[in-house]
Amino acid sequence: MDRDEPVISLELPRAALSPETEAYFEKCRQKLGLVPNVLLAYAFDEKKLRSFTDMYNDLMLGDSELSKLEREMIAVTVSAANRCHYCLVAHGAAVREFSGDPQLGDTLVANYRAAALSPRHRAMLDYAWKLTTEPAAVGEADRAALAEAGFSDRAIWDVASVAAFFNMTNRVASASKMRPNAEYYAMARERRT
Amino acid sequence: MDRDEPVISLELPRAALSPETEAYFEKCRQKLGLVPNVLLAYAFDEKKLRSFTDMYNDLMLGDSELSKLEREMIAVTVSAANRCHYCLVAHGAAVREFSGDPQLGDTLVANYRAAALSPRHRAMLDYAWKLTTEPAAVGEADRAALAEAGFSDRAIWDVASVAAFFNMTNRVASASKMRPNAEYYAMARERRT
Amino acid sequence: MDRDEPVISLELPRAALSPETEAYFEKCRQKLGLVPNVLLAYAFDEKKLRSFTDMYNDLMLGDSELSKLEREMIAVTVSAANRCHYCLVAHGAAVREFSGDPQLGDTLVANYRAAALSPRHRAMLDYAWKLTTEPAAVGEADRAALAEAGFSDRAIWDVASVAAFFNMTNRVASASKMRPNAEYYAMARERRT
Amino acid sequence: MDRDEPVISLELPRAALSPETEAYFEKCRQKLGLVPNVLLAYAFDEKKLRSFTDMYNDLMLGDSELSKLEREMIAVTVSAANRCHYCLVAHGAAVREFSGDPQLGDTLVANYRAAALSPRHRAMLDYAWKLTTEPAAVGEADRAALAEAGFSDRAIWDVASVAAFFNMTNRVASASKMRPNAEYYAMARERRT
Amino acid sequence: MDRDEPVISLELPRAALSPETEAYFEKCRQKLGLVPNVLLAYAFDEKKLRSFTDMYNDLMLGDSELSKLEREMIAVTVSAANRCHYCLVAHGAAVREFSGDPQLGDTLVANYRAAALSPRHRAMLDYAWKLTTEPAAVGEADRAALAEAGFSDRAIWDVASVAAFFNMTNRVASASKMRPNAEYYAMARERRT
Amino acid sequence: MDRDEPVISLELPRAALSPETEAYFEKCRQKLGLVPNVLLAYAFDEKKLRSFTDMYNDLMLGDSELSKLEREMIAVTVSAANRCHYCLVAHGAAVREFSGDPQLGDTLVANYRAAALSPRHRAMLDYAWKLTTEPAAVGEADRAALAEAGFSDRAIWDVASVAAFFNMTNRVASASKMRPNAEYYAMARERRT
Repeated sequence: MDRDEPVISLELPRAALSPETEAYFEKCRQKLGLVPNVLLAYAFDEKKLRSFTDMYNDLMLGDSELSKLEREMIAVTVSAANRCHYCLVAHGAAVREFSGDPQLGDTLVANYRAAALSPRHRAMLDYAWKLTTEPAAVGEADRAALAEAGFSDRAIWDVASVAAFFNMTNRVASASKMRPNAEYYAMARERRT
Repeated sequence: MDRDEPVISLELPRAALSPETEAYFEKCRQKLGLVPNVLLAYAFDEKKLRSFTDMYNDLMLGDSELSKLEREMIAVTVSAANRCHYCLVAHGAAVREFSGDPQLGDTLVANYRAAALSPRHRAMLDYAWKLTTEPAAVGEADRAALAEAGFSDRAIWDVASVAAFFNMTNRVASASKMRPNAEYYAMARERRT
Repeated sequence: MDRDEPVISLELPRAALSPETEAYFEKCRQKLGLVPNVLLAYAFDEKKLRSFTDMYNDLMLGDSELSKLEREMIAVTVSAANRCHYCLVAHGAAVREFSGDPQLGDTLVANYRAAALSPRHRAMLDYAWKLTTEPAAVGEADRAALAEAGFSDRAIWDVASVAAFFNMTNRVASASKMRPNAEYYAMARERRT
Repeated sequence: MDRDEPVISLELPRAALSPETEAYFEKCRQKLGLVPNVLLAYAFDEKKLRSFTDMYNDLMLGDSELSKLEREMIAVTVSAANRCHYCLVAHGAAVREFSGDPQLGDTLVANYRAAALSPRHRAMLDYAWKLTTEPAAVGEADRAALAEAGFSDRAIWDVASVAAFFNMTNRVASASKMRPNAEYYAMARERRT
Repeated sequence: MDRDEPVISLELPRAALSPETEAYFEKCRQKLGLVPNVLLAYAFDEKKLRSFTDMYNDLMLGDSELSKLEREMIAVTVSAANRCHYCLVAHGAAVREFSGDPQLGDTLVANYRAAALSPRHRAMLDYAWKLTTEPAAVGEADRAALAEAGFSDRAIWDVASVAAFFNMTNRVASASKMRPNAEYYAMARERRT
Repeated sequence: MDRDEPVISLELPRAALSPETEAYFEKCRQKLGLVPNVLLAYAFDEKKLRSFTDMYNDLMLGDSELSKLEREMIAVTVSAANRCHYCLVAHGAAVREFSGDPQLGDTLVANYRAAALSPRHRAMLDYAWKLTTEPAAVGEADRAALAEAGFSDRAIWDVASVAAFFNMTNRVASASKMRPNAEYYAMARERRT
């Protein structure tokens, strides 16, 4: 990864990493080919890094009625609403990777309403968009639309939690001007479906 | 606490709680006189509960240049921007508690710009407000304003992280129509300063 | 009342008050235990004070199909939309007083959509909110929703008039940085229902 | 005036008018050539009519450092922000009348920023616009801009009061779909300056 | 026309006009009594002038299921949304001219929702308004509403094209502070219907 | 190109193309490897097609102080503000192509404020953004910022014209649900700088 430029615009001293964190980063390198800059951004404080990764891994990789692709679709849609550069680049790559459809990734970055979505996915992203842009106005009718599209109460919690999580990380990334790893831009650009 | 009404509007089955979680809730009862409903809301899944409390405790109670009151002031200001009922009631109470000034709590709930704030606090809350309402527009000038008000890069990270966190929890609370514990409304209504 | 700090941030000389005005203020003290600062704010000019109180008393206390509590609920909802510190504190107290339900007052201050409202009250506050935040878009469909909830044309006029009035006073209060009487914050904090 | 169509879209029974009100309307006919429909709209209740006209006459015609034209310029600018049909037509005519400059009236209706304004008037209308569209954000810097443009604290109160008043009447007019008198459209279309 | 003041606020040298352009301007003078300032604004470059007039003439005067009045109604509604001074004055005059109804022109300038419109025209202007103010949210439901009001796919293209065109010209006019010809303000003020 | 799916969602019959248009499309195929779908979308009417291409070619390829890359950067920034799928995909590719920097393209799609821009380019895109999102508020101060960044009055006209043009095409594309050519997504993904 490109270490000439700082990962974020704030000057936070990198902490000496524990063996566990070094091992975690090594696992990232093997699996993804890189350590996501968001992890390096948090690496000034291992406790913050761990609380971030624990929540991230549970939400995005843990047990859920939502597929991993669906969770990434929510991530991109929320990040588009908030215009978060880091998250659009990193999670746009993840949508391309999980879907095998590069057009889907770029379309969600641009405007999820322009994508050819199933009713289930349209309802899911409509909800994520509204929860992001008008949280005070979300109500029973919005939940009913999700239920009608087949989401259980538990799945609705997950849609809301993932959307809410990216409303957090988008703001940490924007506030610190976090830079995406250069590799993300070109990743998974081949259509596989 | 009032158990006749559900804590949230979603029907999520309460999981059997582990002894550690029972102990944690007992500690809440002793310290606060209640188990915050947000914890009960997450109690359908202990992993989610723990990732939430780990992050919350680190951000709100952990080491920081920001005082606990300052972090609660950010919590209320962000929750006011998002009009989050649960968080305004619960963290409004916390501002009253930590400041000993009930008027400060209610004023931040209404409009932080109407409060008599130090330049440091005004800069801090201006930043939290903008990061909440216009995350895409936050930039160097906004960080410079915080630096000028005396915030170090690390403290700026904490301001941003706390503001970002409540942008997450506000949305989880709104999406699930989380109900504040009845006790919060009346808590710390006596002026102590 | 606390006279050390100015009632508003503008420096307007207090006029000598006429016996009628002194009597009116005395009546306030007996009935409410205070002279609302909004009246003192207008007291630099008795004509302006009287035109304000005439309109206020007719709208809020005069004959109407709307109960006094309903009118105060509109006042708080409009003031929440406009984030008016003075009016949220003063009329939040009035909602607590008239309803005997402190939670209702604080919930309307936070977000009327989070309150447990009858269909009548939800329709009434939806209308007040929209008339406040999107006056150019209010139309027949909005009035029809009020009519369907049981409001007569005359009652619709009153809903609109009260909402419109607080769109005026919110702005006078914000422009002059009017300070609420300290007593309002603690008033009617006991549940009576 | 055209009595074939109702003055407002609500069906409120016209009250029998008192001799005083009849005299007032007659005075309007002699002075303006018409009874403004806003007065007929309020005529279902003489008390409401009087409290409206008392406030209106004090604010728009009473003693003030602001000229009557300046008050009408504020009225039009606020009504443009709120896109109030009745008020734009009626007070656009008043700006044309008081200024003798029909282009000024139509330009303020379209966008006050496009008008060739003195620094005093630009500051005055910038303030009225912001108080209308972002009341929660108005603060000391905005008042300071008015003071720098030569407005006394008392004059600032009047700018704010007039702007606030039209935020009320715009909403009453929109809510009731008040129709402007047909005469207003063509009135004072000749340039006199 | 008044040549003492510049047509736009940018200092662009007037090019020598070709005989074709002089002839075109002469035709304007004969037909309209003036050369619209927008043409003079573009006259610094004949190629830009011609590409503008070609598109304008095709859209506004060419073959379409939409009448010329309907196209002008869209022009005014879009320009009201964008608060474009030049276009509101010039095309407001065109609506008065084509409709013979001065009130219609001024009402569309103020707020198209306040006009007494046929369902066809209300649907058409609702669409133009939304395409202007929320282009990212326009979708199938919006097109379906136009189809239901009787618009063919081709007519929908024309509604969208005219609305889109004025979203362009409004911005060129605002950016250059284009001044409307003085004659437009008074034109077609007589009711003919 | 993929002809199985319609280029736009409206059903407009394709006109028989003239030899000139066929030649123009053939030139596109040779130069770009495709006929941009926007041209096919307009191909139902050759006059509309030609007025579109004349304006496009003059603005984007004609003589200007702005480089072609700069004009494409404006196109992408405006299209991001309006969230136009077609234009972000097609002109994002053009930014990648002209700059040789794929990251620049994707960063402007996400949020131009996150890009590492020269002061000249930041001023240019700030202006394009504001003219797009707040056209009514653009004024002398905004133009002065461009002048200070080195733009002549003529160059300011071009910045405004290009920004304005994409405010038109974004809306035509959104209204017709125009689909980008599949080739654009993958085009110029190799870094060349």
